This record gives sequence, C-alpha cells and structure tokens, in this order.
Amino acid sequence: MFDVFILMNWIGLFAFAAVGALKGKDAGLDLFGIVVLGVLTALGGGIIRDTLVGEIPAALTSMTDVSIVLCGVFIAVVLSRSVEGALIDHPALLTADAIGLAAFAATGALVGIAAELTVFGVVVLATLTGVGGGSLCDLLLTRVPVVLREDFYATPAVIGGGLCWVAVVAGFTPTSAAIGSALFVFGLRMLAVRYDWRLPTF
Amino acid sequence: MFDVFILMNWIGLFAFAAVGALKGKDAGLDLFGIVVLGVLTALGGGIIRDTLVGEIPAALTSMTDVSIVLCGVFIAVVLSRSVEGALIDHPALLTADAIGLAAFAATGALVGIAAELTVFGVVVLATLTGVGGGSLCDLLLTRVPVVLREDFYATPAVIGGGLCWVAVVAGFTPTSAAIGSALFVFGLRMLAVRYDWRLPTF
Amino acid sequence: MFDVFILMNWIGLFAFAAVGALKGKDAGLDLFGIVVLGVLTALGGGIIRDTLVGEIPAALTSMTDVSIVLCGVFIAVVLSRSVEGALIDHPALLTADAIGLAAFAATGALVGIAAELTVFGVVVLATLTGVGGGSLCDLLLTRVPVVLREDFYATPAVIGGGLCWVAVVAGFTPTSAAIGSALFVFGLRMLAVRYDWRLPTF
Repeated sequence: MFDVFILMNWIGLFAFAAVGALKGKDAGLDLFGIVVLGVLTALGGGIIRDTLVGEIPAALTSMTDVSIVLCGVFIAVVLSRSVEGALIDHPALLTADAIGLAAFAATGALVGIAAELTVFGVVVLATLTGVGGGSLCDLLLTRVPVVLREDFYATPAVIGGGLCWVAVVAGFTPTSAAIGSALFVFGLRMLAVRYDWRLPTF
Repeated sequence: MFDVFILMNWIGLFAFAAVGALKGKDAGLDLFGIVVLGVLTALGGGIIRDTLVGEIPAALTSMTDVSIVLCGVFIAVVLSRSVEGALIDHPALLTADAIGLAAFAATGALVGIAAELTVFGVVVLATLTGVGGGSLCDLLLTRVPVVLREDFYATPAVIGGGLCWVAVVAGFTPTSAAIGSALFVFGLRMLAVRYDWRLPTF
Repeated sequence: MFDVFILMNWIGLFAFAAVGALKGKDAGLDLFGIVVLGVLTALGGGIIRDTLVGEIPAALTSMTDVSIVLCGVFIAVVLSRSVEGALIDHPALLTADAIGLAAFAATGALVGIAAELTVFGVVVLATLTGVGGGSLCDLLLTRVPVVLREDFYATPAVIGGGLCWVAVVAGFTPTSAAIGSALFVFGLRMLAVRYDWRLPTF
C-alpha cells in the first residue's frame, strides 16, 4: 500500500515539472530558464520544507527525484511543440497535478509530524510542499502566485495537512494517515477543478 | 522588565499580521492569500532568521505566536469592513507597527549575538527580523519592497541591531541591551513617521 | 596556487557588489536599498548555499567578505556619479564579474562535494552560488531574472559545476578541480560576452 504513495509522489514530480516547464516556455524563457522552472516547481517546495526542519534537502542527495523531473521537463517541451492546444490545461495533466498536490501535501505533513512541529507547523509544511514550488515559479515570472488570488488549490493541502495531523494524534500510523489524507486532498482538488470552486475575497 | 519586551513582541505580531492581511485584502487576494500574507508578514522574518542560524523556526514549534497572528488577521479583516477610511494608515496601527519593528529588531539582534555572529551578521538578523516579513509580503504582491525605495523604516532596525551588539560587547546583559535598543528603535521610527523622514537617493 | 583562487573570489565579491549597487541606483532605490542590493548580489548566493547544506552562512561569521562588498558598493556609487556612460557595461566590470562567476561556481561545487551531494546537487550549488545573488537582486526589483531569459551566464556555472564534480570523481584534488573548472567557466563566459551567445528558446 505504501508503494501507491511512492507512485503518487513520482506522478506528482513528473506533472509539476511539466507544468513549470510549460509556464517557462509560454513566458518565452530560454532553455536554462525552462529547466529551472520545471525543477523548481517540482522540487522547490520539498527543498524549502527540508531546510526549515534542518535537513539537507533530499532532492540534492538522491538522483531518483531529479531524474523523474528532468524527464517531465523534456517530455513537456517536446509534446508542446507537436500537440495542438494548450497542454497546460489538458485533463490528464490536471489530474496528474492533483495527484502530485495530494502526495506532496501528505509528505510535507509527515515531515512536520516527524519533526514534532505544532499542528500549525504541520499545516505549513504540507502547504509549502504542495504549493511552494509553483509559487516560487510564479514569483520568478514576477506574477502574484495564483494560489493566493483565486484558486481552490492550496485549500485542499491546508485541510489535508491538518487531517493528517489529527489522524496521527488519534492513533493511526503515519503511513495510513498519509495515504488517507492524500486521497482526501486528491478528491477535494478534483471536485474543485470539476465545479470551478473559488475561495471568497473580501 | 523583560515582560515588557515580550509584550512588545506580541503587539508587533498582532500589528504586522494586521498590516499584511490588509495589504492582501487591498490587492484583491482571496481568503487563503489574505491569511498567508498576514502570517508571512508577522512570522516570515523570524522564520528566515532561525533558519539562517540553523534552528527549527520557533513559529513552527509553539502555538503562542501563531495564535496572536491569526487574531490580528481576523480582527483586521473584520474592522476593515466596518471602519471608514484606510485602516492601514491609522495612527494606532502605525504605533503598534513601530513597537513591533523595535521588538523584532532587538530579538533578531539577540539571536545573532547568541549564535556568535559578527556585527554585520547581528545587523543582518536584526534587520531581517524587523523588515523581512513585510518585504516577503511585498514580493508576493510583485512590488519592490517599500523599505528599499523610500522609507525610513529599515534604518532604525539597522542602527538598533548595531547598538544592541555594541551594548553587549560593552558589558550590558543581553536583556538590558535588547530593551535599550528596542526603545531606541521605537523612538527613531516614531520620529520618522512624525517628520516624514526619507533616506537619500543618488 | 590556491591564493589565486581566493583572489578570484575577492574580485568577484567586489564586482558583484558593484553590479548590484548600480542596479539599485538605476532603479531609483534609496541608500538602504542600494546597499542591500549590493550585499545581496555578492553574498546572497553563498548564504542560500550554506543554508541548504545546514551551515551558518560564512558571510555572517567573518568580516572579510562583507568588508570587500561594502567597498564595492561604495566605489561603484562614487564612480557612477563622476564617470560618464553606463558603468554597468564597462569591460573592466564585465571581466571582474566573469572572474566572480567562475570563482563562485567553483566554490559552490566544492561545498556540494564536501557535503556529499549528488552531481545534480553539486551543479545546483555551483549555479546558485554563481547566479543566486543576482537573481535575488532582480526579484527584489520585480524583474524576471535575466539568467532565465536570454543570457549565456548561468550555463558556464552549470557546466563548471559538473566539470568540478567529474574532476574530483576522476581523482583530482578538490583544489585543482576547483581551479581548473573556474578557469573553464571564466573562459566560456568571456567568449559568451565577446560573441554575444544566447541559449535557444522554444
């Protein structure tokens, strides 16, 4: 069952890398910029997370993640030149992206729980892991991160992080808490895409 | 006497959170964006500071600070809907913000002194703790941080950080050095607000 | 021979500080903003690098680097008021900047190798040390970092980082690997300036 969780993380790395690379391409960046945006979108949230809890980022000490990310960047750039229409809004990519959001948020929550943070700290790590990379990518393109403005994208990660913390406090194993909250985040995000949910402004 | 210093930090957390939330609201962000900007303005400088000296950020391991911050965000949003005129320029908020700048700068200097940094390192931590959160907030809104452009806001923190270092080197206890430099920063900032001081450009 | 490498780092600190300060001055920042941009351009990449591998940034614990940086800021501002024409494009500054890029990339690679990162991690640290400070400076001015868009500036650092890793794996001492890759980065960057190289866009 834990294998499913690892697979979700890999799908997420691939999808996030593709999204970042496509954003870079659409903004007219050069080859280096496109690769940086893909890498940062996929790995940036996890790197900030690991740094916050005082660990050397896992992305810099293992070749697995970065290999998947570079594949995602490469395939996205190649496909975007041959496929008609906006690849970045393709249902397959939106679904893979939601899988990534779910897996990343749950992974972030697990790291926060292992570091004995408060529920606030756990939610911050879950959210940062899920949306931090994409927000960094937006910042490098000098755009207000879309998650702050009008989407229902960070909210599932926030709720999922809290849920994972509650489940562990209630006695579930971290693994089952992570899988449960990941499934919840994925379902909530897919509903938000389907029905075009927005958070209120004031 | 140290209780006064803790109280100044709490007032600062409240005021910084309110300022960040109001900036987010004025920029048309959604609920998540408003909360993120409030939290980041109040806690972002301290989180960067703790990370730089290799500690897990205190804001992620204690519920005290974040509770005050969420109160500040909530009250600012509620008040901004019922009060006429721009809340963000209200004298009470400007004063509370100056108290926060003073307490944060002194706290940052203490952390730098405890980590045995150079005077430059101490000044950097004092300044980052005082103005780092607000600058992150500006960056997320894709604005050049106002402290870099035209205000007399970071300068009191810079001088206060140096003063705190000098006082500790001269034999004062860290606590009295922090309180003394915090009072100095507060006074200097209030004078700058009162007389509309600016730093020169070239 | 290692003295040459230290000298290259010093020239780089001076040049990067000057470039950052001139960018700040051209953007109309005040005195504090100009100093921050100079300091951040010169020291920002190294500070991020040290934080990622879990060390307190060297720039905060030694006065050597920051002294050179403040000299660079001061001299750049003074010269820019008396010299005609754009100082920032002056061949002497471009050359000193290329020396800095080379020394910083090699230093970053050495730090990554010492922390036992993967080749990807080593390349990331080399690149961040070389172009991270300048990119932070661009971000604070709300500009898409120029290295992501159209320059041949980060590429030498990327290749140099990989080269340094290969050389160490092949049995060269870290010192000779660093000097060799620094010379390579410098040569490649000067060629790029001379012939106006660009990376492809898509």
